[in-house]
Amino acid sequence: MRIEAAAYEVRVDLGPRSYPVVIGAGLLAEVGPRLAAAGYRGRCALVTSERVGALYREPVLASLTEAGLAPVAVEIPDGEQHKNLAWLAVLYDRLLDGGIERRSPLVALGGGVVGDVAGFAAATLLRGLPLVQVPTTLLGQVDAAIGGKTAINHALGKNLIGAFHQPRLVVVDVATLRSLPRREFVAGLAEVIKYGMIRDAGLFATLEARLDALLGLDESVLVPVVATSCEHKAAVVAADEREEGGERAVLNFGHTVGHALEVLTEYRRLLHGEAVAIGMVAAARVSQGRGLCTAATVERLERLLRRAGLPTEMPDDITPSVLALAMQTDKKTAAGRIRFVCVEEIGRTRLVELSAQQVADQL
Amino acid sequence: MRIEAAAYEVRVDLGPRSYPVVIGAGLLAEVGPRLAAAGYRGRCALVTSERVGALYREPVLASLTEAGLAPVAVEIPDGEQHKNLAWLAVLYDRLLDGGIERRSPLVALGGGVVGDVAGFAAATLLRGLPLVQVPTTLLGQVDAAIGGKTAINHALGKNLIGAFHQPRLVVVDVATLRSLPRREFVAGLAEVIKYGMIRDAGLFATLEARLDALLGLDESVLVPVVATSCEHKAAVVAADEREEGGERAVLNFGHTVGHALEVLTEYRRLLHGEAVAIGMVAAARVSQGRGLCTAATVERLERLLRRAGLPTEMPDDITPSVLALAMQTDKKTAAGRIRFVCVEEIGRTRLVELSAQQVADQL
Repeated sequence: MRIEAAAYEVRVDLGPRSYPVVIGAGLLAEVGPRLAAAGYRGRCALVTSERVGALYREPVLASLTEAGLAPVAVEIPDGEQHKNLAWLAVLYDRLLDGGIERRSPLVALGGGVVGDVAGFAAATLLRGLPLVQVPTTLLGQVDAAIGGKTAINHALGKNLIGAFHQPRLVVVDVATLRSLPRREFVAGLAEVIKYGMIRDAGLFATLEARLDALLGLDESVLVPVVATSCEHKAAVVAADEREEGGERAVLNFGHTVGHALEVLTEYRRLLHGEAVAIGMVAAARVSQGRGLCTAATVERLERLLRRAGLPTEMPDDITPSVLALAMQTDKKTAAGRIRFVCVEEIGRTRLVELSAQQVADQL
Repeated sequence: MRIEAAAYEVRVDLGPRSYPVVIGAGLLAEVGPRLAAAGYRGRCALVTSERVGALYREPVLASLTEAGLAPVAVEIPDGEQHKNLAWLAVLYDRLLDGGIERRSPLVALGGGVVGDVAGFAAATLLRGLPLVQVPTTLLGQVDAAIGGKTAINHALGKNLIGAFHQPRLVVVDVATLRSLPRREFVAGLAEVIKYGMIRDAGLFATLEARLDALLGLDESVLVPVVATSCEHKAAVVAADEREEGGERAVLNFGHTVGHALEVLTEYRRLLHGEAVAIGMVAAARVSQGRGLCTAATVERLERLLRRAGLPTEMPDDITPSVLALAMQTDKKTAAGRIRFVCVEEIGRTRLVELSAQQVADQL
């Protein structure tokens, strides 16, 4: 395992719960040494999925063992359908059987399912274990692994059971993206493009200029782009840890329509990032329709998404009235009003209170 | 329902997570108005047990409804054996079915099982609901309902799955203690006596002087004694919210031996407070044996406990060596060393590092 010297480090500033996010290529071998440097010894846990485990379990276990830790490894099956109470119970059993104690760190190695369910187990075992997130999907690396959201699904909806539990450390190894299916990598890019749209015109311009290198996983572009994305996520989380203040609402750009699309297609047809891509275009069109941004802004967004291989148009079978209904019943819709994130220009947003119908009417 | 004007209010000072504990007789009817005054409207949940529900469900539901809230009521069976993942799942189902939303308050009305399991549901549903604790046991009122500890049991041990989730409000109605079995009331007194031992010689003297009135549930004594106990718990929690700093360790006075006794008797023979009473005498004897306190201090403690009807002597079948072993395997014992809470004089403690054997040898 190659260790890349030129790693980036981003700090999530949350007072006593602050933590670093390290970003680079070939960082899996650093998980053990970094835990040891933070004072951890003895028992620890590695939770991963079958697919990710087959690829990266051994180097991480070796890194932990060499650093003087005694890992117990637990695997859960891949797939969103396993992010439930039954697999959480299995995780509790195996971790406690494995001798996990109150100060034993739990390393979550994998995509969104592992990060969410292992993160929730860490939040709730012995009233909270130290958590290390090692995301292996682009979505996890630039978004889900940072910010402390953990959850499992319930029959009545996704992520209905969960907790905020900030990790102690996030290790982002972009080399793991080489084994990620291309469609998932591209879907993750939607969130990167979102950071450009809401906070960073420079990042957006870089994406326009270096998209081909990025799609080719050229690390000289990939590492700084991922690190910049992590900086944006870290800054928003630091300003509004538990989505109470409203600062975190800006992250919903493209997500109001995107989430409605996911629900209407039963989370089957579109990956999250694909739905967000369509949702961002919709949000930009709503913004343009209200005179908040120019047609050129909408066009730049559409062009970049299309070049990345992301969808930009609403599926034919989703009508505006069905979409309005789905947005209306979203749990974030209070008393029928949506705090809709509009774009003013690339890198700048404005929150506007709209009804679901007002959003749908513009599409 | 009588509303007592002379209620006490204690503030748990935790910055943005601060909350009041109101203590008085006949306060159940205030739950609704206080929630309304805090801005809550619409859907809320009342979680209680079958036994407590039969007694106090209706007045609390009426109070909530009259205050403009729309309560959904859920009952769980009485008994520690129901403090598990299966009943938590039932609670999740019923609360979500009942239309609980992100800002819906959850009122936990009952003893330790309800406070713990409903508290944990509140900690984890929709990543955290506003929680109101309405404890109906003396142990809950002076200890468990304050401080944000929530948990369920696991086959491998008690409270192994849980979270810190501070309530928004604690309503302590001492009138509910009239329906508490006498043995449970007396067991709760052990924790009150503990506050006297560790922090408050004046409280200890009041208990000595007014014990008969207290045992007779004379509210002119009961209300201020419970309020003073809540003040002590609140102060310790404010100094060390998550048992990280060590200030909260003083609450373990009597609990090192007490907890070992509970484990050795499989939580069947002794109530928690009874085990703590024996444990406090043991801790005082260890303190005397190390020259930290006088024989008179030990005698005053023993006399008060005996007068209250609490046990002070180790059960015959528990030998020092068995006790040492049980203390050794406690999850709070790090590397074989116990941070043992000794008493110097009534109202003042000292932390001493001891091995389990050193503790047992003094008994």
